[in-house]
Amino acid sequence: MPDLILALDVLSREEALSVAEAAAPHLDAIKIGYPLVLAAGLDIAAPLSEFGIPLIADFKVADIPNTNSLIAQQVFAAGFFAIICQGFCGSDSVAACVEAADDAGGECYVVAEMSHPGALEFLSGKNAELLAQMAVDAGAHGIIAPATRPERVQTLRAIIGDKKILSPGVGAQGGDPETIAPLIDGMIVGRSIYTAEDPAEAARTYARFRR
Amino acid sequence: MPDLILALDVLSREEALSVAEAAAPHLDAIKIGYPLVLAAGLDIAAPLSEFGIPLIADFKVADIPNTNSLIAQQVFAAGFFAIICQGFCGSDSVAACVEAADDAGGECYVVAEMSHPGALEFLSGKNAELLAQMAVDAGAHGIIAPATRPERVQTLRAIIGDKKILSPGVGAQGGDPETIAPLIDGMIVGRSIYTAEDPAEAARTYARFRR
Repeated sequence: MPDLILALDVLSREEALSVAEAAAPHLDAIKIGYPLVLAAGLDIAAPLSEFGIPLIADFKVADIPNTNSLIAQQVFAAGFFAIICQGFCGSDSVAACVEAADDAGGECYVVAEMSHPGALEFLSGKNAELLAQMAVDAGAHGIIAPATRPERVQTLRAIIGDKKILSPGVGAQGGDPETIAPLIDGMIVGRSIYTAEDPAEAARTYARFRR
Repeated sequence: MPDLILALDVLSREEALSVAEAAAPHLDAIKIGYPLVLAAGLDIAAPLSEFGIPLIADFKVADIPNTNSLIAQQVFAAGFFAIICQGFCGSDSVAACVEAADDAGGECYVVAEMSHPGALEFLSGKNAELLAQMAVDAGAHGIIAPATRPERVQTLRAIIGDKKILSPGVGAQGGDPETIAPLIDGMIVGRSIYTAEDPAEAARTYARFRR
């Protein structure tokens, strides 16, 4: 059964710290993205780290290798435990993120498949399978694949073996936690927790699917 | 003949402002990316704007539509004139950036093709042509295509018509300005200017290729 990862997709430092503090006892990791970092600064990682939960930078890094390195090095220097990158810029761009993760004793995850409608144009099917294999070959720690498509998660699992699968899309986006939990290593829940009247109680509800 | 765009890929506020001030008289735009923004904050746009040159956020935005919107809205609110996004996440993700640009009276460019070795895996050939067409269909203002591959720039030009092409790779990466200038709308030069002993003089050298 998977870790519980909070997608802390709020836009202010105050809200981020408030939700994180409430939910922390039920979490294994907190994932934040560029909208919060652009608003609050990369150093939001420092106060968030005080809750004792590993931080994941969901930056979907998608640039040339040198730029990816510069981004990933700053991410790990700021105190994050893991980074999420895109794979479609190629294996050298992924390797740059993996190397920065390895240097920091951290982890790197590669987006294999996404679940919004536009993902069907490039980020699904055969391309997703190629990206999952790329993640393995590049030494990444795992992939990102959608909780809304459990049959695809199983297909990708066959490619990556015991690498980890982190899955967004549980809750508000329709992914069923009962179905997806046995298939993945990290269940990413966002709105269902951070927009809840009682984020601690909402996190507790999902925490029953944890390892 | 193209605009001259400085890729201001430095990592500190001080160096960014110093190079930008020196080169500004010869520039049509300044492009900055996440490495500088993570180090100096998104509000680096404010002092950079004081040189009177439009700013481009080269964030290669690559997420779901809602996250892309949140990123792009902050970019334009911070004073940028344009944003660069990836197309690989699909036309809805691109449309989110285009809409934010339109709302702000700004511009959005889609990466069609990249020039690092790993780009040959996904971001070239037929996919690049599909991405260029996607940029047109989504109402983007233009595409990004490599100055190091002028024959590819011509192929992509045939797809996008009078939309703009901004091309990185001139100078240190080997793109020949004489060859590429007549084919594009914006010539992006980085290291050859910002690592020069005299960035003003270096910018002046490339400025002779301007419109």
